[in-house]
Amino acid sequence: MKEKGLLIVVSGCSGAGKGTVLAELFAKADRLSYSVSATTRLPRPGEIDGVNYHFVTKETFEDMIAKGEILEYTTYAGNYYGTPKSELKKTESGDSLILEIELEGATNVKRMVPDAVTIVIVPPSLEVLENRLRSRGTNTEEDIARRMKQAAVELRHITDYEYIVLNETGHADRAADEILAIIRAEQSKTARNPDLVGSLTVNN
Amino acid sequence: MKEKGLLIVVSGCSGAGKGTVLAELFAKADRLSYSVSATTRLPRPGEIDGVNYHFVTKETFEDMIAKGEILEYTTYAGNYYGTPKSELKKTESGDSLILEIELEGATNVKRMVPDAVTIVIVPPSLEVLENRLRSRGTNTEEDIARRMKQAAVELRHITDYEYIVLNETGHADRAADEILAIIRAEQSKTARNPDLVGSLTVNN
Repeated sequence: MKEKGLLIVVSGCSGAGKGTVLAELFAKADRLSYSVSATTRLPRPGEIDGVNYHFVTKETFEDMIAKGEILEYTTYAGNYYGTPKSELKKTESGDSLILEIELEGATNVKRMVPDAVTIVIVPPSLEVLENRLRSRGTNTEEDIARRMKQAAVELRHITDYEYIVLNETGHADRAADEILAIIRAEQSKTARNPDLVGSLTVNN
Repeated sequence: MKEKGLLIVVSGCSGAGKGTVLAELFAKADRLSYSVSATTRLPRPGEIDGVNYHFVTKETFEDMIAKGEILEYTTYAGNYYGTPKSELKKTESGDSLILEIELEGATNVKRMVPDAVTIVIVPPSLEVLENRLRSRGTNTEEDIARRMKQAAVELRHITDYEYIVLNETGHADRAADEILAIIRAEQSKTARNPDLVGSLTVNN
C-alpha cells in the first residue's frame, strides 16, 4: 500500500513530552526517517553535521531562503532554524518522514505540502502540564508562570492540526502507538494509492 | 479520546473477502457494534429478529421510508434491505458502529452523515479475484465471467471511499488490523475531540 512515504509534521507544546513520544515512535517504527533541520547556530560538543543539524552560515541560510530551498523557518536567539526542502526527498524511497516543528509552523507546511499529515502532541490537561513543570524542581514559580503562559499561546494553534495525540503521564508508548495507527491509516487513504486504484479499475 | 463512537461504512466487491475480514475485526476489537439492517424478506431457519436482521413487513418498511427513518436502502429479489436510522444511536455510548453496505451506497450515507468513515475492502488485483472465484470450484465459466463483470461495475465506486484496504489471500487478520488502525486514527482527529481541545484552550 506504500507508494510514497508520508510527510508527518509533529509538534507539541512545552511539557507535552514530545521528545519521549518520538523516541518511542522511532524505536517501534519501520521505514521512518527524521527530517534534519538546517541552523546557523554553532554546533555544541558532540553534535554531528547532517545528523543533529545541517550547520550552515548565515549567508548560506539566507541564500537558501532566497532560492526557495527552505520549506519553513524560524529565528531563535539570533539564529535561523529551518527545514531544507531537500529533506523531503527522503519520502521518495517509501519511507515516511517526521518533521518536528514549532506549533506556529504547521499552517505554512500544509500550504506548501497539502498532503502532509499534521499531528500535535498535548498533555491531558493544563493542570497536568503545570504539575509536570513543577515536579521538575528546577523551575522557579516565575519560570512556571512564564511557561504556562507560553503554552497557552502555543495551544491556540492546536486546531491547525488534523490529529491530536494525548500523552498521558507514564504512557508515551501509547501515544507512539497512536501515531503509528495514524501513519498506517493515512497510508490506506484511497487518494494516496493511485496505482492500486488504477490497477483495479483500468478495464472498466 | 473517544467522545462519541464512529459510524464506519464498510463495503467490498464480490470475492474481496469482506466477511472474513469483518469476523477478524470483531474478534480483535473492543467497543465495536454492528448495524443490523431491516429487511422485508422472510427469516431463514436459525435467523433471529434483531440480531441477523430486523424483519419487518413491506408496509412497515415503506412507512419507515416515508417517515425518513431509513438511512439508505436497496431492493434485491423483490425485497427491501436498509439501515434504520435508529441503529446510529449505538454510537452514543462511545462504541463505534460498523455499517456493511453495497458499494453503491457510500455516497448516500456520506451525504447524510458527513463524519462517517468510509472503507472499501478490495482484492490485491483483478487476477487474484478471478483466481479466487475459480478456486471455489462451484462456479461455471459463465458464473465467473458474470461475477467479474459485476465486480468491475462495483469497483468503479472505490474512489467514493476515503480508505482502501487490501485483503491479501490468507491475511484477513492484516486487513482487520488496518481497519483497527483507521478507527484509532479517526478517533484522534482534532475535529472529533472538541471537549479535549476546549479544555486545553479554554483560558486563552
